[in-house]
Amino acid sequence: MLLPNIPAFDEAAAAKAHERQDQLTKPTGSLGQLEDLSIQVAGITGRERPSVARKGVIVMAGDHGVVLEGVSAYPPEVTPEMVQNFLHGGAAINVLSRQAGARVVVVDIGVASDFEDAPGLLRRKIARGTQNFAKGPAMSRAQAEQAIQVGIDVVEDEIAKGLDLVATGDMGIGNTSPSSAIVAVFSGLPVSQVTGRGTGVDDAGLARKIAVIEQSIALNQPNPKDPLDVLSKVGGFEIAGLAGVVIGAAAHRIPVVVDGFISGAAALVAAELVPAVKPYLIASHQSVEIGHKVIWERLGVKPLLNLGLRLGEGTGAVLAFHLIEAAVRILNEMATFDEAGVADKE
Amino acid sequence: MLLPNIPAFDEAAAAKAHERQDQLTKPTGSLGQLEDLSIQVAGITGRERPSVARKGVIVMAGDHGVVLEGVSAYPPEVTPEMVQNFLHGGAAINVLSRQAGARVVVVDIGVASDFEDAPGLLRRKIARGTQNFAKGPAMSRAQAEQAIQVGIDVVEDEIAKGLDLVATGDMGIGNTSPSSAIVAVFSGLPVSQVTGRGTGVDDAGLARKIAVIEQSIALNQPNPKDPLDVLSKVGGFEIAGLAGVVIGAAAHRIPVVVDGFISGAAALVAAELVPAVKPYLIASHQSVEIGHKVIWERLGVKPLLNLGLRLGEGTGAVLAFHLIEAAVRILNEMATFDEAGVADKE
Repeated sequence: MLLPNIPAFDEAAAAKAHERQDQLTKPTGSLGQLEDLSIQVAGITGRERPSVARKGVIVMAGDHGVVLEGVSAYPPEVTPEMVQNFLHGGAAINVLSRQAGARVVVVDIGVASDFEDAPGLLRRKIARGTQNFAKGPAMSRAQAEQAIQVGIDVVEDEIAKGLDLVATGDMGIGNTSPSSAIVAVFSGLPVSQVTGRGTGVDDAGLARKIAVIEQSIALNQPNPKDPLDVLSKVGGFEIAGLAGVVIGAAAHRIPVVVDGFISGAAALVAAELVPAVKPYLIASHQSVEIGHKVIWERLGVKPLLNLGLRLGEGTGAVLAFHLIEAAVRILNEMATFDEAGVADKE
Repeated sequence: MLLPNIPAFDEAAAAKAHERQDQLTKPTGSLGQLEDLSIQVAGITGRERPSVARKGVIVMAGDHGVVLEGVSAYPPEVTPEMVQNFLHGGAAINVLSRQAGARVVVVDIGVASDFEDAPGLLRRKIARGTQNFAKGPAMSRAQAEQAIQVGIDVVEDEIAKGLDLVATGDMGIGNTSPSSAIVAVFSGLPVSQVTGRGTGVDDAGLARKIAVIEQSIALNQPNPKDPLDVLSKVGGFEIAGLAGVVIGAAAHRIPVVVDGFISGAAALVAAELVPAVKPYLIASHQSVEIGHKVIWERLGVKPLLNLGLRLGEGTGAVLAFHLIEAAVRILNEMATFDEAGVADKE
């Protein structure tokens, strides 16, 4: 498939932001990761005094055939029920987005049941859930490409409406299993080292989940050198769509705030397809899922928060919006030593 | 001195908040520390559905005689210059407070130079800086008590104006030295294990700082069983004032968000004086200063952020306001499984 070109990170804008940080009325480097963040956003946007006023989270929802293997603590009807909850404003992502001044864009990219038209819902279904990847590929290669294109299209539509900062969010009962499979394949690590309890399976459930993923990889033989092969054989529609969001945002110099384990797996797929997206990624948080850390390490990013979250939906990413906005406001609004008449270091 | 009574943490309100968290449309416990936070705020305020709408940060400023020993990377005139910067809105704490919707209350509790009356400045000077504690006590016991009372009075005045959440902030060139001294005395740990670079001294400066603090403790012999003795011999006016803020807020069931190393030392003094304040403390972040971790361990609290901050002023605490507001909004605004018609765990 033809993927968009990713512009180079603007080193000159980043250097100017860095220079300004060092002139602001605080000890050099004393705002730690906030300073780094502001410099990154300057380099991403190509603006030494960037703004992140217009914020949004794109929540992609899909179902997973592999739930038939008993890998999740929740029944699959929760996926469409939670989509309705998103549309009615009652989910965690709605609450946190209202607080952060971010809009929520909900996309049905592969839920197993159908929705009526509703405000805030984009109906872009590729299929009614993936196939059970314990029995064969989750989707065709063409479907994986279509799902990535949906993500690119959705984020480009939002950028056209005005968007300075985008978060990735997911909903899909069973979707930690494809995420663990993807991370295992790209990292080469044993499945047991990248698989956690998801929404909360017990010890027996975790053992079953690991066994199912191991067997699925053995059966499908996804090729780690071919990211579309991995995505189509052991991925999911929302994961593919979110990979598209990452690629589409980076192509337009929009910082992408990556949420939890599923969003991380999507960002990993995006970076395997198009390594140039990496400087555009902001890792929002370290989740409880053990494979999440592996993703951040492979992407070379350091998460902002570590609050024991394991919800998804984009919740950790939207929480991190406050820190990113803080970083940018510091750069834009603080007085310099000269302006304030404060003595600098001796 | 007569300290106010601290009400008991409201276990019943906390239990009701916990019960509600478990009914909200998310896997049980999946919002990690945010859930704990909301339960803590319920127990502090005695309200199962609390609000943290009205926020403020109290920034106490003071100077330190021990700067004569060359313990800081910045000259002491920076203290009054930064106070002016606070009053003009150009400092990091102003920027972050505007973002968080928090008011900034600046208190001259012991700056070495004098200020004119100015909007936003409370003139409550105990003395023009502390004495050099390398030569004798930093202040008298009566001054330590006065400074604590200033903190109690200031926070009570703010509560009377309307305050749901308060952060502690500090400004005072040289004030990591008294903070390290306080932590060393209460913890019994070697000074070298609780002393960092402050605003950025080099290796030689750090070695000198450690030696000065060691000698000061040896000279003054502060008694760890007598917190007022420790505070007066090796403390600072802003540290004493912030200890008062902690005590005054806890007495009125207001959650206290503790900032960095200096605020942490103040919270430690408060907790040594009145152990009942502990449940009212929220640890905002883990700073770069190595002694900060020791404080949080002694207070039995887990910091929310770890962003490599080392600025003070209340900056980390006001950043954490967003997370505390998120926690409370989740508790108040999310739909329950019943309300949303979502299936719970199987």
